[in-house]
Amino acid sequence: MTTSAALPTPETIFALDACDPLAPLRSRFHLPEGVIYLDGNSLGPLPRTARHRLVEVAEDEWGNGLIRSWNSAGWIELSQRIGDKLARLIGAQPGEVIVADSTSINLFKALAGGLALRPDRRVIVSERDNFPTDLYMAQGLIALLGGTHGLRLAEADAIAQAIAADTAVVMLTHVNYRTGRMHDLAALTRCAHEHGALVIWDLAHSTGAVPVDLNGAEADFAVGCGYKYLNGGPGAPAFIFVARRHQVSFRQPLAGWLGHAQPFAFEGCYRPAEGIARALCGTPPILSLAALECGVDIALEAPMAAVRAKSLALTDLFITLVEQRCSGHGLRLVTPREYDRRGSQVCFAHPDAFPIMQALIARGVIGDFRAPDVLRFGFAPLYLRYADVWDAAHILAEVLDTRAWDRPEFRQRAIVT
Amino acid sequence: MTTSAALPTPETIFALDACDPLAPLRSRFHLPEGVIYLDGNSLGPLPRTARHRLVEVAEDEWGNGLIRSWNSAGWIELSQRIGDKLARLIGAQPGEVIVADSTSINLFKALAGGLALRPDRRVIVSERDNFPTDLYMAQGLIALLGGTHGLRLAEADAIAQAIAADTAVVMLTHVNYRTGRMHDLAALTRCAHEHGALVIWDLAHSTGAVPVDLNGAEADFAVGCGYKYLNGGPGAPAFIFVARRHQVSFRQPLAGWLGHAQPFAFEGCYRPAEGIARALCGTPPILSLAALECGVDIALEAPMAAVRAKSLALTDLFITLVEQRCSGHGLRLVTPREYDRRGSQVCFAHPDAFPIMQALIARGVIGDFRAPDVLRFGFAPLYLRYADVWDAAHILAEVLDTRAWDRPEFRQRAIVT
Repeated sequence: MTTSAALPTPETIFALDACDPLAPLRSRFHLPEGVIYLDGNSLGPLPRTARHRLVEVAEDEWGNGLIRSWNSAGWIELSQRIGDKLARLIGAQPGEVIVADSTSINLFKALAGGLALRPDRRVIVSERDNFPTDLYMAQGLIALLGGTHGLRLAEADAIAQAIAADTAVVMLTHVNYRTGRMHDLAALTRCAHEHGALVIWDLAHSTGAVPVDLNGAEADFAVGCGYKYLNGGPGAPAFIFVARRHQVSFRQPLAGWLGHAQPFAFEGCYRPAEGIARALCGTPPILSLAALECGVDIALEAPMAAVRAKSLALTDLFITLVEQRCSGHGLRLVTPREYDRRGSQVCFAHPDAFPIMQALIARGVIGDFRAPDVLRFGFAPLYLRYADVWDAAHILAEVLDTRAWDRPEFRQRAIVT
Repeated sequence: MTTSAALPTPETIFALDACDPLAPLRSRFHLPEGVIYLDGNSLGPLPRTARHRLVEVAEDEWGNGLIRSWNSAGWIELSQRIGDKLARLIGAQPGEVIVADSTSINLFKALAGGLALRPDRRVIVSERDNFPTDLYMAQGLIALLGGTHGLRLAEADAIAQAIAADTAVVMLTHVNYRTGRMHDLAALTRCAHEHGALVIWDLAHSTGAVPVDLNGAEADFAVGCGYKYLNGGPGAPAFIFVARRHQVSFRQPLAGWLGHAQPFAFEGCYRPAEGIARALCGTPPILSLAALECGVDIALEAPMAAVRAKSLALTDLFITLVEQRCSGHGLRLVTPREYDRRGSQVCFAHPDAFPIMQALIARGVIGDFRAPDVLRFGFAPLYLRYADVWDAAHILAEVLDTRAWDRPEFRQRAIVT
């Protein structure tokens, strides 16, 4: 399928919002006045429940409960409880997902654990334009292993051809952070298995935004991020999925005490816990976990079919409006138009992407610049309105038409871009 | 030096509190009514500033600032800012300490980084009774390396003798979690260096409670915990110290994007950042970091000499009172009496330690049970009063005298003990 060519009008926009089954969820988030937030794939907004929950955890659980809250407030079960909830968003079963550490750390666990399950194979296959931390973690592991293993990088279109009899693990990000291109998770998993390889899916830009069926695809491992479409707060803990069939043999090197079969027996030798708990390492940051749960709870209220339908409608609308209003300004769409290859973002390349994005942000349209030349707009169906898309496209057109971006202050780069 | 033998009276207790230079700091913490908290070495109490700070970070920075807060609220610098503050508590310089991940994860970085700096040596030396996660992380790394390296465990008194020409890294916890015994950090560091080995100090039970001078001792690496004597909140992020002289050559395998020289250049190859930032991995949990900073800020207000003097006086007093009031009940002091071997806790072994601790907790005296038979009492000088020690000792005597602990409900074990 491709983008609809019908030109929207203010009336159709109004009607789309009026009929949006997800519209009531917008009120669950704090969205500041004057902001159109198209960066929920970098950091999702604050769930309104999170403020109360944070005060409750701080005052009642930490302040009054003190150490007792590990039992009485269920802190010790929190990583698993949120993991079980998350499982419902990605086609996994309870006991297959746990929240822990960062996405990068969880990738390391999955990579090392996956290589150990394919001891006769020496190659990790990934995508050249994968999110850098994924590649860095693989490079770090390979360097640690002393050169016995290698990383084979392929272009997005050539992943399947890069998988061979030497491939131990295929490590891919489902939706590309820079282009919004979505891989066929089931087909590439099948391809990896046909070659005897295992697959690790990074769901950072998928979870909560696009349908994912890990068990349906018989995926082996996955990791994902808590602070994007799950709206779990800045630097929210990440998650890891290990398919149940692998859990007995899964061993990962970050063998911290919370992954031990009996952490409070204080034994001298590591014995991995049963099940997914062996993917845990150290003590998790409870305040950040509590905020994450608020975001996950909202995501669970939205039927994924409705989320996906709205995501495609929002991104369709943005593409249509930008192509209509901004033609002649040199924007080049880098996100696939095909529904089955599109995540929940729309990206345009432009030589002046950096100052253009700064000018947009100054006008309250918050997206991301992604080096070297990408304007990235994320469309989170839980809180965005069709009217936001309309307004954002018009403000982009205005910035381009007036060259409002062409000012020195919009070229100054901060630490985080 | 040994414990004073003078028998305290209520009048002397009153005088000690009246003259305590740290007494004003108690009001900075929320301490629930009816609780004598001797478990600050498991989870420190809530700084009163933390509630406000958490609401501020949630509402203003996350809620209103959204993604912009990585720059505008300084989130991107938070790990380093808190690390620089922490450096002052452990005898390090700014730029030698950074906050990241968990203690376990940071141990892995230091261990792998340390082994890489001693490529011709194959042995990690540690203490048999080290905190289990330290041993587990070493075991996990060794297994990953495929049996090329080994872990040599020695009793606490025999560490020096275990260090030899084959030793790459000596990994020790400064204050033992179960006994409260403190190692001579400078002497063992010197011993390791004399044998050409590097040393990693786990400061989990030291930071904020006992004097530590990493640079004075020329220590190589250290890690530590944010949620014990730093009062940073449940599961607060941990820290890592890498001596400046090692930073250029320090490479660690958890090579996540925030440890990259230019994270937002999104390069395909990992290039470690200058300095201590190369110890970073993934995105840190900002809410938990913000709470940690509240705890660290209070710790910085207390001169370490005063902290240490009060710690010794509190632990002296508890030992004296317990030995006076609880004699004949089979308690055996396992914490050294010598000041230079004592951390900030007092531990007694008893065959019924578990139900005794449960009975104490039921009476509001919160300490820890540590398997197999240890009653552990932590004495945090920032908020404990001499009167608390007096009361705790008397309640312990009452529990023992009346065998109040000998009830079925006090033998039921929860998940976290």
